[in-house]
Amino acid sequence: MQMQCCPVSVPVKCCLVRTPSSSPSSRGGGTAVDSIPMIAAGGPKWAQKTITLPPLKRGCHLVTPKIVKEIGEDLSEFNCGLAHLFLQHTSASLTINENYDSDVRDDTETFLNTIVPEGTSAPWKHTLEGPDDMPAHIKSSMFGCTLMVPITNGKLNMGTWQGIWLCEHRDYPTARKVVVTLNGI
Amino acid sequence: MQMQCCPVSVPVKCCLVRTPSSSPSSRGGGTAVDSIPMIAAGGPKWAQKTITLPPLKRGCHLVTPKIVKEIGEDLSEFNCGLAHLFLQHTSASLTINENYDSDVRDDTETFLNTIVPEGTSAPWKHTLEGPDDMPAHIKSSMFGCTLMVPITNGKLNMGTWQGIWLCEHRDYPTARKVVVTLNGI
Amino acid sequence: MQMQCCPVSVPVKCCLVRTPSSSPSSRGGGTAVDSIPMIAAGGPKWAQKTITLPPLKRGCHLVTPKIVKEIGEDLSEFNCGLAHLFLQHTSASLTINENYDSDVRDDTETFLNTIVPEGTSAPWKHTLEGPDDMPAHIKSSMFGCTLMVPITNGKLNMGTWQGIWLCEHRDYPTARKVVVTLNGI
Repeated sequence: MQMQCCPVSVPVKCCLVRTPSSSPSSRGGGTAVDSIPMIAAGGPKWAQKTITLPPLKRGCHLVTPKIVKEIGEDLSEFNCGLAHLFLQHTSASLTINENYDSDVRDDTETFLNTIVPEGTSAPWKHTLEGPDDMPAHIKSSMFGCTLMVPITNGKLNMGTWQGIWLCEHRDYPTARKVVVTLNGI
Repeated sequence: MQMQCCPVSVPVKCCLVRTPSSSPSSRGGGTAVDSIPMIAAGGPKWAQKTITLPPLKRGCHLVTPKIVKEIGEDLSEFNCGLAHLFLQHTSASLTINENYDSDVRDDTETFLNTIVPEGTSAPWKHTLEGPDDMPAHIKSSMFGCTLMVPITNGKLNMGTWQGIWLCEHRDYPTARKVVVTLNGI
Repeated sequence: MQMQCCPVSVPVKCCLVRTPSSSPSSRGGGTAVDSIPMIAAGGPKWAQKTITLPPLKRGCHLVTPKIVKEIGEDLSEFNCGLAHLFLQHTSASLTINENYDSDVRDDTETFLNTIVPEGTSAPWKHTLEGPDDMPAHIKSSMFGCTLMVPITNGKLNMGTWQGIWLCEHRDYPTARKVVVTLNGI
């Protein structure tokens, strides 16, 4: 079962051919191909901008709508590609998780606070910037500051229940910058 | 020591020139270049498809063979590029780790279960979908749902001992979708 | 507010137009665009090489200077793009975190050693390669072996306080290979 790879040096218009799945059953054992987008290219495109997310209180926040509002018009230009998000900070993080029940975000914040000691019992040497600073750095590396999401038919191709979270690990809310880079055809 | 970057608007055939390392010693102190692929391009290509991994029991599973079986033919079209894997779920994860001893995968599952409380002692608010659901969300953000692997000479350029793992964090096995995007020359 | 996406099939010289921000205020509530690089493309470029980082002792190390020394000349050829780093090992990790105070790196190592049991009290089955081996695998999946950083105006576009860390999780220092892939215009 083969994807169609297309050299883009030929300046034809982009087109997207979606073939019906030849493996309708994706359950019950063998690995199955669920859908086979085949893509003929017109030329690769790049776009990049820095967006600023407003200050958010400590905790996990669903920011998909904010991000899509900023880049949605650009996304619509891409039939197939990748969207890269890069948070330019070391005391917050980006992750993808459940987009519906805010309890999931609260529980994740509870987990992070349980797993990373804070305050007088914590063993940190780096304390000059406050008791929440060193834990924030650790949480930032646990979840990471960078995400890559596929683009399909002009939209972020995430699962039904997936959303982009900004996790703010500092007590004092700060605006956070995200460099968004789009690449595709 | 310089990589050769090649505009791809010239529709020449791809070629890959591998020069011998000029720094044969990669040990003992200074940063050394181990190999220097220099790549002349014929034109960038994009390919994307969604593959479905069969239901797997809770735990960590080596899925490199399954994935390569699905995308290997497409991979072979790329001399140089990147392969992006995106798991469309929030209760499983993708990670790269040891590909040989299944004990490593078992021990990693043990670790995850130790670090993320589950059951009556757990502090979670989000419990409607069962005791394993909230822990699954947390583990998904710890390991992540997205991977990017370099492509070199038509193959995933992982280290000798590296493999792609699907970590299933739910008790009830479910088929899992992975959007694979290939980009390169 | 729109990014300019540019088909690269037209073989014109790259150019970068930076417009002044039309949303000077990035605080106080609404999502704001901080800067809007608009990019006109001349043609996409790919470059890839494997660099070897020298053996480093167990712990977290700032390696931005070492990496930029290896790829800086190549980076300068890209106005806009992405730099991918891929560590070919399963007992070390790459992460982005604070680039100034070495205490942050020491504290992060302390955290990792606290969170992942090692020695006689540890529940691991995989012990053949020494007591530090299984913990090293787990830490590798916690922080990950792959990073993607935006390139803007010929440089890695990280935040002021961000740096690239190599975290060595084994007791015995080993040279570590990183496959670097650059893609952009």
